[in-house]
Amino acid sequence: MSFEATEHQHVRFNPLSGNWVLVCPHRMKRPWAGQVEKPTEENIPAHDPMNPLCPRVTRPNGQINPDYESTFVFTNDFPALLEEVPSPPESDDPLFRASQARGTCRVMCFHPHTNITLPLMSQEEIRAVVNQLSMMWVMEMEELGKKYIWVQIFENKGAVMGCSNPHPHCQIWASSFMPNEPHLKDTNQRQYFLEHGTPMLMDYVARELEKKDRLVVTNSHWVVVVPYWAVWPYETMILPRRHVTRMTELSNEEKDGLADIVKKLTTKYDNLFKCSFPYSMGWHGAPTGPRLENEEKHWVFHGCYYPPLLRSATVKKFMVGYEMLAQAQRDLTAEQAAQKLRDLSEIHYKIT
Amino acid sequence: MSFEATEHQHVRFNPLSGNWVLVCPHRMKRPWAGQVEKPTEENIPAHDPMNPLCPRVTRPNGQINPDYESTFVFTNDFPALLEEVPSPPESDDPLFRASQARGTCRVMCFHPHTNITLPLMSQEEIRAVVNQLSMMWVMEMEELGKKYIWVQIFENKGAVMGCSNPHPHCQIWASSFMPNEPHLKDTNQRQYFLEHGTPMLMDYVARELEKKDRLVVTNSHWVVVVPYWAVWPYETMILPRRHVTRMTELSNEEKDGLADIVKKLTTKYDNLFKCSFPYSMGWHGAPTGPRLENEEKHWVFHGCYYPPLLRSATVKKFMVGYEMLAQAQRDLTAEQAAQKLRDLSEIHYKIT
Ligand SMILES: O=P(O)(O)O[C@H]1O[C@H](CO)[C@@H](O)[C@H](O)[C@H]1O
Ligand SMILES: O=P(O)(O)O[C@H]1O[C@H](CO)[C@@H](O)[C@H](O)[C@H]1O
Repeated sequence: MSFEATEHQHVRFNPLSGNWVLVCPHRMKRPWAGQVEKPTEENIPAHDPMNPLCPRVTRPNGQINPDYESTFVFTNDFPALLEEVPSPPESDDPLFRASQARGTCRVMCFHPHTNITLPLMSQEEIRAVVNQLSMMWVMEMEELGKKYIWVQIFENKGAVMGCSNPHPHCQIWASSFMPNEPHLKDTNQRQYFLEHGTPMLMDYVARELEKKDRLVVTNSHWVVVVPYWAVWPYETMILPRRHVTRMTELSNEEKDGLADIVKKLTTKYDNLFKCSFPYSMGWHGAPTGPRLENEEKHWVFHGCYYPPLLRSATVKKFMVGYEMLAQAQRDLTAEQAAQKLRDLSEIHYKIT
Repeated sequence: MSFEATEHQHVRFNPLSGNWVLVCPHRMKRPWAGQVEKPTEENIPAHDPMNPLCPRVTRPNGQINPDYESTFVFTNDFPALLEEVPSPPESDDPLFRASQARGTCRVMCFHPHTNITLPLMSQEEIRAVVNQLSMMWVMEMEELGKKYIWVQIFENKGAVMGCSNPHPHCQIWASSFMPNEPHLKDTNQRQYFLEHGTPMLMDYVARELEKKDRLVVTNSHWVVVVPYWAVWPYETMILPRRHVTRMTELSNEEKDGLADIVKKLTTKYDNLFKCSFPYSMGWHGAPTGPRLENEEKHWVFHGCYYPPLLRSATVKKFMVGYEMLAQAQRDLTAEQAAQKLRDLSEIHYKIT
């Protein structure tokens, strides 16, 4: 019997995190009798006077939102990270190590309407919104990056991803410490750069463009792939064609291109299971704050999408027992997922 | 202002995994308008002729389960790991590394009745069941450990933890590779042992017994703590008082003690939010297979419980956006969680 990746279990290595993932394609055959999720809410009003993210609404802290017409950024009313807090006492006990954490958390609303999602906007609208968005992202990165070593922009979309508010928005958490995930990516990209003299992810994009079997969608500035080492069933990565280390380096054409590729990817996602597709997504690039002075050539700016759904709009992949205690495990190959996404239309199923 | 762990955000280090966790106790004050889980199913029959885990039922593969009266072990009908599969071709490309994965997956039913859970059994019953269980666990560890380097025993309890069958059972996945999580624990415990000459977790138990503020429940053989570096709100660890490297080394008294401590811990868990408390749990000890010959003195056998609930029987902690892209974050301190669990009765709320 010869090895077939789509038939035979194997493990794959993630050179960014240093972790392995167990790939078990034969497992898609098992029946599912477990929990099903509620379908995504369809009857959301454009404006809800009780929703603290809507224009003109009074927030829990008494502030009134402006009558904003595009994006709107404010400091989270219940932030996980505060700017000024006392530091824990220093301890050299290796078993009880604590350290200080300072930071800030902001919320960025994408649009004044609650019932809008990116893929459902027209090409012009989304271009305007994503251009505005990427402009705002870059502004926030610039402002917060002066002060903090790491600025994490992320979006939780859908109740199943813990999103507690249907209004289209993302969050920005900036911190005085390098969080685990980017720390691993920093170390491993640096190591690769030292060994090969080229940035890991630029080599990776080049190879994926040759191999083609994990490509989802591309344009003249961006490449979307299901990474070889993907953990989530339909996980994707947005990679630039040009070596960009930070979001703040993007040209206007690259920002335009980003609007286009985000529109195409999220449309395919919605088309996959004919639902408003839930995910967590975020951007990773070279560290900021004290590291703004460095070249950081080992870094390549990129986006990560982690969607939980596996089989349908209501059946997700549970990362539980084995995954928590031992190792991530996936039920279809990255190539199978890429092909499904690649074959889907770039026109939203609700637009005909 | 002086530092108060219960008030001020900080990060804590996990010496087993090498990761940090962000602790934000002030965050418990935020309101929650997001997804609520279905309450756990209460009307489960003792026997369901359609449930493939029940005695005398015909499974999907045509086999008929025996009329078992205590535990029952069989190979999973839809295993993630198969014993014989072809290996992927060797590649020295650092960006596309795959490796072989062989193994087996077994299911172990705890009891012939579907509607029973450990904490609801009487002390005698649970002692019988857990003694039987630990006997079976040890047998499986011995048998599979001859062949495989890692034998992961784990239980997913509750639909919210992806458990697709309400019948009380755990799973055993044995593999030809060291999975990520135990690999990290192996490396970090070894490093500590080299530096200090003592096993990390034995030093840790000793310190927790002195400090007392993270203790949940103890008996003469076992200690349950909310680890200093806990990620999940009510995460706990079961640690031995004696240096045991593998489950197979437990004395009869230690197995009895384990029955007692598991009963007490799971009763407290059920009492916390007055529900059948969901979790993923599992056991970690020194590797097996080719490493059975080694002493592995750096290892300490222990159990890990990862429960998802945060605020009530229906509101869980979502490990999403920031957690996936940056770093785990928790909303109450380990000490606060330990105190809550410690103060709860050891008598189940349904038994009066
Ligand atoms: O094997 P089960 O219980 O059907 O499946 C459950 O546990 C497995 C091991 O943790 C996971 O891989 C699955 O995603 C989860 O649904
Ligand atoms: O801030 P939110 O959207 O209310 O909360 C959500 O995202 C946070 C950041 O990923 C998580 O820590 C929370 O568990 C989740 O519910």
